[in-house]
Amino acid sequence: MRILGIDPGLRNMGWGVVDYSGNRLSHVGNGIVHSIGADMGPRLLSLYDQLTDIVARFAPDCAAVEHTFVNKDGAGTLKLGQARAIALLVPAQAGLPVGEYAPNAVKKTVVGVGHADKGQVQHMVKMQLPGVELNGADAADALAIAICHAHHQRMAPAIVQAGGAQPSPAKGYKVKVWA
Amino acid sequence: MRILGIDPGLRNMGWGVVDYSGNRLSHVGNGIVHSIGADMGPRLLSLYDQLTDIVARFAPDCAAVEHTFVNKDGAGTLKLGQARAIALLVPAQAGLPVGEYAPNAVKKTVVGVGHADKGQVQHMVKMQLPGVELNGADAADALAIAICHAHHQRMAPAIVQAGGAQPSPAKGYKVKVWA
Repeated sequence: MRILGIDPGLRNMGWGVVDYSGNRLSHVGNGIVHSIGADMGPRLLSLYDQLTDIVARFAPDCAAVEHTFVNKDGAGTLKLGQARAIALLVPAQAGLPVGEYAPNAVKKTVVGVGHADKGQVQHMVKMQLPGVELNGADAADALAIAICHAHHQRMAPAIVQAGGAQPSPAKGYKVKVWA
Repeated sequence: MRILGIDPGLRNMGWGVVDYSGNRLSHVGNGIVHSIGADMGPRLLSLYDQLTDIVARFAPDCAAVEHTFVNKDGAGTLKLGQARAIALLVPAQAGLPVGEYAPNAVKKTVVGVGHADKGQVQHMVKMQLPGVELNGADAADALAIAICHAHHQRMAPAIVQAGGAQPSPAKGYKVKVWA
């Protein structure tokens, strides 16, 4: 299974692709797409076009997007919402199922603690994807999201088989199970 | 000149098309597109597809989008940001210039006062587009945005010709001038 992780941002949108097969992870690609232009329409279009190219180039089976942190800065939240729309629209348009994870859930899965800093996340991404070259912090975050999704893919069927409840969104993450 | 006005919303997105020629306005069409589905990706995709169809069907020359009101409800602002991204992306993808107007600027242009209620806006839309049948409040708002844009098209060249400053975004609206 090939997973595209996306860390949504209006200025810098991180992306990372991993392959997950037989409980093994391997790195495929990572990078950052930047929005171009002054007006919002063309900026969003530039993100859309670049992300659409990435989906066409790497042909992932599913995607995972970081669930945006909502804060009291209304203008910042609005911008993040706009970027996030592109991150959700492009995989949906390609017919990919999309998992969403809160930042703390990603850190907890990848590092083991929800309050890990960026350095720890990057360290663990490098540990789990030997030889990877990280193209910036946002790209590392996107790979962490993809890794988080891979771990949840492994866990989810076991949870369902055991008749247990799926982790609730209130706990900071959301798991989707595909048969 | 054919203008597509859009009132962005995640659940209900209003749209309205007017023709503006020789200082005369005429109604072309109006309605509401609804997002379909439970997950955000498919919901955004359904808005994207429907709005893309409207652009293809009516072939507007430009678009005008209501500038989203940012409030202290972070989750609401995030949703509105996501809907707004679709409203800006689709015209940008069709190569249309997009004007953005704050709600108060639309009301001030169409009704004469910035604090007009929905009933007054609908009344003035009907006055300026005789015979129009309004397909809901959001569709009426979208037509008001298109009318607002038409008026600013008329005003903008005169302002530029007189060497005057364009109204600043700080005053609640943004005018773009196309030669």
